[in-house]
Amino acid sequence: MFDRLTIVKVGGKVVEEAESLKAFIKDFANIAGQKILVHGGGRSATAVAEQLGIQTKMIDGRRITDADMLNVVVMVYGGLVNKNIVAQLQALNKQAIGLTGADLDLVRAEKRPVADIDYGYVGDVTGVNTEALEELVKSGVIPVIAPLTHDGEGQLLNTNADTVASELAKSFASSFRVQLVYCFEKKGVLENPNDDDSVIPYLSREIFEEHKVNGVISDGMIPKLDNGFNALSRGVSDVFITNIEGVKNGFKEGTRLSLR
Amino acid sequence: MFDRLTIVKVGGKVVEEAESLKAFIKDFANIAGQKILVHGGGRSATAVAEQLGIQTKMIDGRRITDADMLNVVVMVYGGLVNKNIVAQLQALNKQAIGLTGADLDLVRAEKRPVADIDYGYVGDVTGVNTEALEELVKSGVIPVIAPLTHDGEGQLLNTNADTVASELAKSFASSFRVQLVYCFEKKGVLENPNDDDSVIPYLSREIFEEHKVNGVISDGMIPKLDNGFNALSRGVSDVFITNIEGVKNGFKEGTRLSLR
Repeated sequence: MFDRLTIVKVGGKVVEEAESLKAFIKDFANIAGQKILVHGGGRSATAVAEQLGIQTKMIDGRRITDADMLNVVVMVYGGLVNKNIVAQLQALNKQAIGLTGADLDLVRAEKRPVADIDYGYVGDVTGVNTEALEELVKSGVIPVIAPLTHDGEGQLLNTNADTVASELAKSFASSFRVQLVYCFEKKGVLENPNDDDSVIPYLSREIFEEHKVNGVISDGMIPKLDNGFNALSRGVSDVFITNIEGVKNGFKEGTRLSLR
Repeated sequence: MFDRLTIVKVGGKVVEEAESLKAFIKDFANIAGQKILVHGGGRSATAVAEQLGIQTKMIDGRRITDADMLNVVVMVYGGLVNKNIVAQLQALNKQAIGLTGADLDLVRAEKRPVADIDYGYVGDVTGVNTEALEELVKSGVIPVIAPLTHDGEGQLLNTNADTVASELAKSFASSFRVQLVYCFEKKGVLENPNDDDSVIPYLSREIFEEHKVNGVISDGMIPKLDNGFNALSRGVSDVFITNIEGVKNGFKEGTRLSLR
């Protein structure tokens, strides 16, 4: 049988606040077996950009990445957030390594073509170096991946962290039993956005499409779920949307996606 | 016989200017055999800190690293400079990986004790994970190392890049024929600081000590040469101080250190 590989993407407020990040890292470290962490850090980037006098532009929850903003996300995602997570995992005696898509040519992307919107230095993933990552995880190392990619011609690119996690999960689906976990500050996908306890325990693609239309599911949750369903349809075994508690209790809480 | 391992530390203006950095990376990539790159980026950190309204304090060419400045160097060294170098090496079809001392527990340090001066979050190296680095270089990967270390308890620390290079060189001296190269904007160690062509081709420790006393060698050059002689006395085969030209022509130009 295939080994299990758990790919956790952590984002939202969990990453922004030192205390919740620390709690998450401890629970993540306790997940049994081979694992990969993908992190966001969007709001930290926004804060640093603001301090640097760089304006943040978002369209439909997606960041417009001009040259200055690219430098900010490379600093914040690739440096500040990534290396602090690695240092904290090391403190728990976990052999972690912090990487971007440029390192070991892990995630290659092409600059998104300009159609109606010019997203700037945003990369759409074209390939994953599964072999190099697999070698790391099989040797007991935990890769900690910042959501940055490169085009193979020297240009770094900004790629949505949910997408990076989903692309990695898909690339491992033929060699591992992959569970993909999106961890953020909410308990899961909510039936009622104003009621934090209204978690939808199982979400089928059909219900997701309905909820998109009726507005129950909106904003940043849509690309996250699109990524999740896409992974599921491409051989990833399980996809969970949950919070730190869910990571702690082995994904017993939260929303589980199902194709039917 | 031992394999040769070339460890190049690049810093100063070479790193600050996009054109010279690009030229350097090309020449570095052409060095035959196994290699490791250690980079600085001090002046970029100073510039970003300034934009963020954080004041840079230096004592004897050493940066005082308070909590804010630590975040800046983690962003600039660990993110901006490191990942751009990696992306450029990938563009030359070199399998590079950008790392700090926290990644794979590569370089551990302890926070410098406060004596007369409180240097803040500055780390004095206590150990190098030679095995993990050796595995990388033997598999044909080029480690690109930012001058950041960690204390094993979750704290990142700022460590002088010349020192990181020297510590790595020493740690490999028993398993490789190591050449340690300090590359910056000058042709080498100068007899007359105002004459860029007054390169001292061979510098013995004795002459170095004399030149320290008579002021010919001063400022940032002193810790660099201290690091270089220290490496030489601990089994490193060759130590060169040179510029991009020297890297290009196989260290035929520049200053070569010798113990006698």
